[in-house]
Amino acid sequence: MILSALLTSVGINLGLCLLFFTLYSILRKQPGNYAVYAPRLVAQRKSEQRSDFNLERLIPSAGWIRQAWQPSEQELLMGFGLDTVVAMRIFVFGLRVFTFAGIVGIVILLPINYSGNQLSDDDSDLPDISLDSFSISNVEDGSNWLWVHFCAAYALTGVVCYLLYNEYGYISSKIIDYFYASKPLPHQFTVLVRGIPVSVGDSVSEKVGSFFSEFYPTVYLSHSVVRRTSKLHSLINEVKQLRRKLARLKLNGNASNRHKREGFLGIFGRRVNVIDYYEKKLEDLQEQVRMEQSSLAGKEVPAAFVSFKSRLGAATVLHIQQRINPTVWVTEQAPDHKDIHWVFFSTSFLRRFISYVLVVVACIVITILFLIPVAIVQGLTNLEQLETWLPFLKGILRLAFIRQVITGYLPSLILQLFVSLIPPVMIMLSTHQGYVAYSQIEKSACIKVLFFTMWNIFFANALSGSALYQIDVILDPKNIPRVLAEAVPGQASFFIAYVVTSGWTGVSSELFRLLPLISNYCRRLFCKKDDEHVEVPSTPYHSQIPKILVFELLGLTYFFLAPLILPFILIFYCMGYIVYRNQILNVYMSKYETSGKFWPLVHSSTIFSLVLMHVIAIGLFTLKKLPLASALILPLPILTLLFNEYCKRRFLPLFKAYPAECLIKKDKENQNEPTMGEFYDKLATAYEDPALKAREYYGATGTNTSPLLRDTGTS
Amino acid sequence: MILSALLTSVGINLGLCLLFFTLYSILRKQPGNYAVYAPRLVAQRKSEQRSDFNLERLIPSAGWIRQAWQPSEQELLMGFGLDTVVAMRIFVFGLRVFTFAGIVGIVILLPINYSGNQLSDDDSDLPDISLDSFSISNVEDGSNWLWVHFCAAYALTGVVCYLLYNEYGYISSKIIDYFYASKPLPHQFTVLVRGIPVSVGDSVSEKVGSFFSEFYPTVYLSHSVVRRTSKLHSLINEVKQLRRKLARLKLNGNASNRHKREGFLGIFGRRVNVIDYYEKKLEDLQEQVRMEQSSLAGKEVPAAFVSFKSRLGAATVLHIQQRINPTVWVTEQAPDHKDIHWVFFSTSFLRRFISYVLVVVACIVITILFLIPVAIVQGLTNLEQLETWLPFLKGILRLAFIRQVITGYLPSLILQLFVSLIPPVMIMLSTHQGYVAYSQIEKSACIKVLFFTMWNIFFANALSGSALYQIDVILDPKNIPRVLAEAVPGQASFFIAYVVTSGWTGVSSELFRLLPLISNYCRRLFCKKDDEHVEVPSTPYHSQIPKILVFELLGLTYFFLAPLILPFILIFYCMGYIVYRNQILNVYMSKYETSGKFWPLVHSSTIFSLVLMHVIAIGLFTLKKLPLASALILPLPILTLLFNEYCKRRFLPLFKAYPAECLIKKDKENQNEPTMGEFYDKLATAYEDPALKAREYYGATGTNTSPLLRDTGTS
Repeated sequence: MILSALLTSVGINLGLCLLFFTLYSILRKQPGNYAVYAPRLVAQRKSEQRSDFNLERLIPSAGWIRQAWQPSEQELLMGFGLDTVVAMRIFVFGLRVFTFAGIVGIVILLPINYSGNQLSDDDSDLPDISLDSFSISNVEDGSNWLWVHFCAAYALTGVVCYLLYNEYGYISSKIIDYFYASKPLPHQFTVLVRGIPVSVGDSVSEKVGSFFSEFYPTVYLSHSVVRRTSKLHSLINEVKQLRRKLARLKLNGNASNRHKREGFLGIFGRRVNVIDYYEKKLEDLQEQVRMEQSSLAGKEVPAAFVSFKSRLGAATVLHIQQRINPTVWVTEQAPDHKDIHWVFFSTSFLRRFISYVLVVVACIVITILFLIPVAIVQGLTNLEQLETWLPFLKGILRLAFIRQVITGYLPSLILQLFVSLIPPVMIMLSTHQGYVAYSQIEKSACIKVLFFTMWNIFFANALSGSALYQIDVILDPKNIPRVLAEAVPGQASFFIAYVVTSGWTGVSSELFRLLPLISNYCRRLFCKKDDEHVEVPSTPYHSQIPKILVFELLGLTYFFLAPLILPFILIFYCMGYIVYRNQILNVYMSKYETSGKFWPLVHSSTIFSLVLMHVIAIGLFTLKKLPLASALILPLPILTLLFNEYCKRRFLPLFKAYPAECLIKKDKENQNEPTMGEFYDKLATAYEDPALKAREYYGATGTNTSPLLRDTGTS
Repeated sequence: MILSALLTSVGINLGLCLLFFTLYSILRKQPGNYAVYAPRLVAQRKSEQRSDFNLERLIPSAGWIRQAWQPSEQELLMGFGLDTVVAMRIFVFGLRVFTFAGIVGIVILLPINYSGNQLSDDDSDLPDISLDSFSISNVEDGSNWLWVHFCAAYALTGVVCYLLYNEYGYISSKIIDYFYASKPLPHQFTVLVRGIPVSVGDSVSEKVGSFFSEFYPTVYLSHSVVRRTSKLHSLINEVKQLRRKLARLKLNGNASNRHKREGFLGIFGRRVNVIDYYEKKLEDLQEQVRMEQSSLAGKEVPAAFVSFKSRLGAATVLHIQQRINPTVWVTEQAPDHKDIHWVFFSTSFLRRFISYVLVVVACIVITILFLIPVAIVQGLTNLEQLETWLPFLKGILRLAFIRQVITGYLPSLILQLFVSLIPPVMIMLSTHQGYVAYSQIEKSACIKVLFFTMWNIFFANALSGSALYQIDVILDPKNIPRVLAEAVPGQASFFIAYVVTSGWTGVSSELFRLLPLISNYCRRLFCKKDDEHVEVPSTPYHSQIPKILVFELLGLTYFFLAPLILPFILIFYCMGYIVYRNQILNVYMSKYETSGKFWPLVHSSTIFSLVLMHVIAIGLFTLKKLPLASALILPLPILTLLFNEYCKRRFLPLFKAYPAECLIKKDKENQNEPTMGEFYDKLATAYEDPALKAREYYGATGTNTSPLLRDTGTS
């Protein structure tokens, strides 16, 4: 890619970003869009003031940026939970890393690369200069300037490790503070027990009760057995949808709308009043709900949430294997009760083991299938091949601008479209892996998306070639540094374009929320009045965190290879940070709290990026005929991995369970509080399936939303 | 190697074995050798009857074999502990595997291999037939007979996995039974706490006391802080040696022996009575011991053994991380108090982390250095090279018998000598890794020796070539099946000779105990009377188990490559089993009990052997132009690894800690026993360093062994 193609891409994307930002800053002020741009506030009834029309509403303003900056970390922590703060820290960490990397890269490395003479096409005009002239490829083989790159690799690794260590410690301390500040929460006192062996006719509930009251008589409090409620959940969903439909009909309906024909395809049969028809249907459904609820007593799943009188009691049961056979009576930390995915509650150890294996196989298959779109993208960057495939394009492809758009913009756009299909697929796979909580599913999906994206975007693209060739490379670890060092620098320009297109427009379109905006307009077009129902989306960590981390991977890997990429990534992090603070204040809501469980993932992927950078450095210094540097860089990955090992042992345990010190301190604090009796009463019923408690779907009784509904996570 | 060379080797070794067995069955009956062949019984005063001379004593008999067979497993379990039974089960497992493998190999595979015509030198006389004619190399490329080998690989894998699963389950049940049958033992109630952060002037003891009585007031019982006693231990050892010397002198001394000269080299100075001299020296030493013991109060190590009132209490503290920082107040299961290696008590988390890294580096260095003896061995098998190195040997090397000895016997003997140096080195390395118990050190050394032996005997020998070439192969996993399939079958004859030489003579010389026998004779030659001191050696699991497992590796890997190896391995297992039952009944004594912790190691190394067999099969079927078989064998390693994963989750946890079910059951059982008060009193002092309690080294008091001495493991 030449400089002008890059500038075209930057121009297009910058234009798009500005457009999105401007449109956002106007549209967000229109009262009709509140449900799109501030659903969180609407749900909390904070933005009800529907001001009249005035000119100020049509003028783009940047007030929202100031607003987004306002809340302090402490305020965010208290208002939005620890996960939000951790996600913010990920951006802050990236900003710090790339500020350092950017300064070193642009001020020191870029001039050295540009002043090199290794590449022959150096004498062309500035717009026609290949981006490779800014990369390390342009430095002469064996040049002593390469030692600057060598030092930069050591310096950046040191800085990143220092920042990582600090950040790990900081987040750890936040986790402890957050725990100390929390009031007693049901999940702190509860353990999920799975794989309870029962013979036919046995009652799971009795078995659990007798086991824990025999073994832990002093701390055992109560338990709730899980029941097979998937049918009930879908019935209740139907009831809810029907109720909403009815409410809308009653509000908006005109005469023509209020009648429909019964019978086959609505052609035959008599015309009936629609409202009567749906009310009849609703009654039938409610009767079914009642029947299903009453028949659930026999549908026990061999799993139960067991609550204890103290946090230490729950921790004891959690950490010690209960039975001689470790595949039965398996204990695990109970998730937040709002976080439980009741519908898919797999229990048997063996079944979960098999699902795990199958999901891994499915992920591999998806990764292999994904090479098809990657091949298409590679076809686009190779214009000659495209001309032979589609000869009628020859004429168009001769236009310089079209060429620049096709090589600089289209490939990453197409790739991005395909990549955006992956997170939902991975969520679906994780759901079938036997997790019981949304947060676990989301974290597992996050890891899958991250692996997938790293593999496909980075490796499959950088090691452009057939799948077999890639497997060949991976199965030949000795050659990996050489192969990477040969392939990766040449892809720098593609990745710069990728960062600009996918990162910048990704962030700004995330802000703009095009699809929700369109669906909102449609809804308002067809409904006369709002039905007041606002869906607050849950923060999509599983798709956002991998994206941030992939850009970090690109930034760190290309740090000394092609420092030109660094400012673009820095801008991405800046934009991301602002937009995220804004995605959080107005739009998204964390439906559950994982207490920063995402951070270790960030840590390990950063370490991976660093080691990858070192591996490429080893190969590169060999290619550049500086074998001494190649040998001297060897200790760096080893030290980095040792650092990682140390951090894992030093900090990771806290992300898995609270230490006795904290548990006992909190237990003692609560011991003599008069409210604890009330809390225990609440605790005893906290882990009942909301579908079982939802008596308002029985028919006869109330018609509107009830507090119990919130338990299913629809607020 | 040709058949006659193998027969020479078998002949030599069989002769040696018979000689050892015969000598053993005579020598064991001589009263003077009781200390060598039955030290365990002597120590237990069971073989004190010193019969007069009779002819029967000079006739070899096989009564000891019958004797070794007599005790049932239950008797062994009760008398010798679980480790002994597990070690026996390892032999039984090997016997079962190789009985099946041997039958399939000899009855089915060997005839198929021998009837093949791939190798051209098939028409020579029987004694000159190359052993390769019995290996798979002799089967024609692409022959359908290879499908028999294919089926055999599946069948053996199935049988081995079935046996492994059964054995894992059986040993698990034994562990539980053994635990239930045990009386209250101090280590069941105790936890070792390391890394207690103390500032200067703080008392560790006070800190530990206040921490546990604040956090676990209901279950905490007592604690003993560890002190730096390495100097004291060495002083006490000196005292013990001096006392033994004095006792011997008093018993045996004649006039000339009773005097020595004082002063420089004993030349100048006056003659003094030796006994007076040593008694004076002993007094000095005892004074030093007293001084050192009284000064230890200030030499606290930031580690303590903390005892609790119940097993569940100890388990709670063990399993839950105590402090926010997981690198301080680190808890681990307290080893049996007889098992503690007091001298080298490293405590800091960081120091242990660093030692671990350094030990790994040292192991790698040793492995690389070991290639030198391996190269020598390879020189011996290559006679032409030997002739060019040492031309004067030319004449001798032309004698057929010498050639056979050199190619068939010497290489494995030399290798075996070098290999026998490794276990003590590995024990030394493991000692510096921060383990606190002999059993942990031994297990860690066992793993190191196993890795080392597998690598050096199998890989370095099979992949004969430079170290760089080997690293090349390992760094190129894709090619491993091919390289192994090319290299391994050709080494079959070497390994058959190795099994015969190293295995058979190893086992029989283990029985014969040549070195202890010689040292015993020397002692009896120079001392007129026995000083009644019998050292009972501790079972050397760290060197025996790796040996057994390496033969298993060889047997499984060569199962279908060269089935000729199987009967030799089967004989090794038979001999080993008998001799082991005998080294156990009479000679060795387990000084501590690990409750079968060695079994998981056997399991994983068996899985490794199976997968290695599959990998070689993949390469081999490709080489033999049967790619379909090569592809169809692929699921086998995957299924085997999944089986391994399942077994790990199903059984492994029990080998790490007892489940709550067992702990609570035992706690309840003991709850109301009147003896528990007494036990608690004993528990409070059980984990005091024996060097601190050993008041008899103070001088003045008693001179003979006291019960406290047993605590240091010298019985």
